[in-house]
Amino acid sequence: MNIQHRSPLWIYDTTLRDGAQREGISLSVEDKLTIAHQLDKLGIPFIEGGWPGANPKDEQFFQKLKTSPLRQAEVVAFCSTRRPGNQAAEDPVLRPILAAETRWITLFGKSWDFHVTAGLKTTLGENLAMIADSINYLCQQDRQVIYDAEHWFDGYKHNPAYALETIQAAVQAGAKWVVLCDTNGGTLPHEVAESVQAVRQVIQDCQGTTQIGIHTHNDSGTAVANAIAAVQQGAEMVQGTINGYGERCGNANLCTLIPNLQLKLGYHCVEPEQLAELTPSSRLISERVNLAPDDHAPFVGLSAFAHKGGIHVSAVQRDPQTYEHIEPQTVGNQRRIVISEQAGLSNVLEKANHCGIALDKQNPVSRQLLQQLKQLEHEGYQFEAAEASFELLLRQALEQRPSLFELHGFDVHCYCGSLESRQQGGFSSTALATVKVVVGVQEILTAAEGNGPVSALDAALRKALVDVYPSIAKFQLTDYKVRILDGKHGTSAKTRVLVESTDGQNRWTTVGVSTNIIGASYQAVAEGIEYGLLRPCFKDSDECPIGIRAILNDLNSAPAKHLA
Amino acid sequence: MNIQHRSPLWIYDTTLRDGAQREGISLSVEDKLTIAHQLDKLGIPFIEGGWPGANPKDEQFFQKLKTSPLRQAEVVAFCSTRRPGNQAAEDPVLRPILAAETRWITLFGKSWDFHVTAGLKTTLGENLAMIADSINYLCQQDRQVIYDAEHWFDGYKHNPAYALETIQAAVQAGAKWVVLCDTNGGTLPHEVAESVQAVRQVIQDCQGTTQIGIHTHNDSGTAVANAIAAVQQGAEMVQGTINGYGERCGNANLCTLIPNLQLKLGYHCVEPEQLAELTPSSRLISERVNLAPDDHAPFVGLSAFAHKGGIHVSAVQRDPQTYEHIEPQTVGNQRRIVISEQAGLSNVLEKANHCGIALDKQNPVSRQLLQQLKQLEHEGYQFEAAEASFELLLRQALEQRPSLFELHGFDVHCYCGSLESRQQGGFSSTALATVKVVVGVQEILTAAEGNGPVSALDAALRKALVDVYPSIAKFQLTDYKVRILDGKHGTSAKTRVLVESTDGQNRWTTVGVSTNIIGASYQAVAEGIEYGLLRPCFKDSDECPIGIRAILNDLNSAPAKHLA
Repeated sequence: MNIQHRSPLWIYDTTLRDGAQREGISLSVEDKLTIAHQLDKLGIPFIEGGWPGANPKDEQFFQKLKTSPLRQAEVVAFCSTRRPGNQAAEDPVLRPILAAETRWITLFGKSWDFHVTAGLKTTLGENLAMIADSINYLCQQDRQVIYDAEHWFDGYKHNPAYALETIQAAVQAGAKWVVLCDTNGGTLPHEVAESVQAVRQVIQDCQGTTQIGIHTHNDSGTAVANAIAAVQQGAEMVQGTINGYGERCGNANLCTLIPNLQLKLGYHCVEPEQLAELTPSSRLISERVNLAPDDHAPFVGLSAFAHKGGIHVSAVQRDPQTYEHIEPQTVGNQRRIVISEQAGLSNVLEKANHCGIALDKQNPVSRQLLQQLKQLEHEGYQFEAAEASFELLLRQALEQRPSLFELHGFDVHCYCGSLESRQQGGFSSTALATVKVVVGVQEILTAAEGNGPVSALDAALRKALVDVYPSIAKFQLTDYKVRILDGKHGTSAKTRVLVESTDGQNRWTTVGVSTNIIGASYQAVAEGIEYGLLRPCFKDSDECPIGIRAILNDLNSAPAKHLA
Repeated sequence: MNIQHRSPLWIYDTTLRDGAQREGISLSVEDKLTIAHQLDKLGIPFIEGGWPGANPKDEQFFQKLKTSPLRQAEVVAFCSTRRPGNQAAEDPVLRPILAAETRWITLFGKSWDFHVTAGLKTTLGENLAMIADSINYLCQQDRQVIYDAEHWFDGYKHNPAYALETIQAAVQAGAKWVVLCDTNGGTLPHEVAESVQAVRQVIQDCQGTTQIGIHTHNDSGTAVANAIAAVQQGAEMVQGTINGYGERCGNANLCTLIPNLQLKLGYHCVEPEQLAELTPSSRLISERVNLAPDDHAPFVGLSAFAHKGGIHVSAVQRDPQTYEHIEPQTVGNQRRIVISEQAGLSNVLEKANHCGIALDKQNPVSRQLLQQLKQLEHEGYQFEAAEASFELLLRQALEQRPSLFELHGFDVHCYCGSLESRQQGGFSSTALATVKVVVGVQEILTAAEGNGPVSALDAALRKALVDVYPSIAKFQLTDYKVRILDGKHGTSAKTRVLVESTDGQNRWTTVGVSTNIIGASYQAVAEGIEYGLLRPCFKDSDECPIGIRAILNDLNSAPAKHLA
């Protein structure tokens, strides 16, 4: 693409304030600090921190930020205009905002006449005075003011003259920016364009230097397009949130907007090396707010550059631009070839290639593996995320998967002494697991406790094997996910468990499926241990434990029936 | 809103073909039939069923549909143009498409020169012949042809003259529709508008009656806005999928597009009573494809009309249009007042009101309940979905929650005899649960088996209580969801379980949280049974079982300390 380099655009992040309104998000002060520093690293110039005064957590956030300041970003405090009838200097809303000691303040006020009379229960004139006074006062206190025109688009639709008067009041009082907010998210792109033109005219008419910003919500599914429409009409600030978090259907997603604006429309938002931090930042923040990332999110989703149709896969390998709108690396994402029920042979070969194994189409192992994958996926297994389990299957088909241990049985026992009520701290329960495994000719029977059945089982299995395979001591479970596959069957449903393990340096994921959640968990945990032991050997490293190397050598010296 | 009634728009659904390309979706023939009939009920005029010939499942789908035909919709078969160098009449791609015996056929072909030479490895001229021949041949067989111009927008960007020639070929060969496809999803709305104008001109120039359609993908986060931009330039068919399912970042979401087009832009897509089926259809189909619904989806998401900020809630109650862009009922959704950590008092009161209890702010129970909710949500409980658990808490605070049974202990035992390999059908494991509950002065000890620990526990609990409370026999678990709250702690993480129960007529959801998944499940299952027993009594119905009514009467005659 040949794109002209245009003027800079100012990105304004409100993940910590508007984003946190999303159902299910609840941020601690520590969470907020971590996220703010991540946004700073990403090159976001304005970071809205919260509403000091409305919320003790937000006050603490601004205080703590003074001892660990951001490198480049301006942190912005958010509040409303003064209350009707008050003096700005004595208003209880404006006092705490000054105490936050930020250089920039975002003040929101009403643009929709209906909200003034029915919501604030004051006159249209007093609302204009509230806007002007509050901005004037904050400017006198040496603050730079961003004026958020709440419900701008609805206001402009219902009473355009009054809506424009509120903008005029803000411009004349000295606001650096007026930001047009689609608070209810009901606006479509063509309406945005028209309305930005009208605001530009008002600013010109009063010879103001105020710049225009845009703040959109996704209730019509067009938050990103609305922001783009405003930018194309001259807006120079874009407000949004990471991953589009926000109330109801969310805010404009900055992870979508930034690459669109920078890679497709040629605006400068962040440095190219910061853009490559977009995907990691999106995932880190989703982890911090404790929400599963949206795998299908544009640009940063796990599936954004995933290919599964057979035709696509062979074409994309020949020339990526045939099926990819941008290079995944520019936003820190990557191409993925997906193993799935619809997987063609070429996908399987590509995936094997990723494991360092060059299979070819003529090799009967390839078709056999494809059939096996289809059958397993039909039963509920999923190898899209569980790449370690895929590699174990592949090695097994190639007769390169030695038997390191065999389970001869397990027994898990959960006991709950008495039901205490929630208020007294929930259930006290203990779990005890017994496992019997066989390694070579040695039978090992052992038991361990845990605070749940799966952690007890995991502990017992490690305990049984650690003497034979000491590297197990380094392994740790880092993630445990449960998905009920057919919820309709209630507690008799099939359960899929994904377990992520680490040896301190590498991470790998394994899968188990069963109608019994304990059985599914055992399977994933056991494969996690197995893969951890075999991984260095598969990678042909000197780190392959001697005992395992011996087993592998035995295996390799046997005639390999399936290898062509 | 005052909207003019404009000309009809034709909605074309490709959930069953393009939508099924989404990672994690795998549809059986039965699934496809159910979804097709649901789309028909919703009033979608064109339903793309699949590619007969590419896939035995799709062939079966078209066959089976003949015995249970759709009421109104046209089912459409999908396939590519003939292969380079072949005769259309003898082409192996076109033969199975005729065997499907649909009136309408969608044929896709190449518009991007690069895909012709590098992908198909043929000449630009032969590609034009492939388009023309294939359409001509299908028209001769009395089929109505929709021509999908694959990679239209990239083709038009790279070689506009050739791209327009492919459209001309389709128009002259007799295609009823040409559909401009943004196959890679990289296009932005202003580019769509320009390109549709050019196509309109070509159709005019060759005096064709062909109509224009639009097919967009969401890789730039603008699939919906792109479709709208095309419609505003005269496109009369919109292709998309339910819930935006589709490869990578998905297709244009029909659940967003239909209400935007109909409610905001005044086009006629479906009947108003069909529009009110949109939310139920979206959820039914997400259940059928076995993907969790997106709670934050525009129009149809659980959170699309949810209000949690204190200010919003009091305002929205005064006048819904202050904070809602459309009336939720028009799309079959509803307003929700959300109980959350940030819940203000007014939210709690509103929620109590939904349970039929008029609490007021002055009542100390209100504040006490708010504190308790905040504490529990901090521990990982979530009452947003678990409204039955909320009502139990509320009744408890009001001293209206009788003790129907008390748990004195449970013991769950899972035994796995031996590890069979996956290929031999997975784990064989059994679970045995023992519970000791006390009802009044009666101690009941009983045990039951299940195919997993939770189903065994559920069975044991019902068995213990059914003699005392016979209505339990009607109850059933209908959904079971597990969420690991802090996956980073591996198997020691906290687990939240949501259980949905039914008595055949009503459904209700309860929640449990514990580090022990069995403990959390027990809690949710037990509250599900408790709520099911108390529900008719709370609702003041004659159906309240006599034994429970007696317990409640005792409770009510005691002095209620907390009631003001």
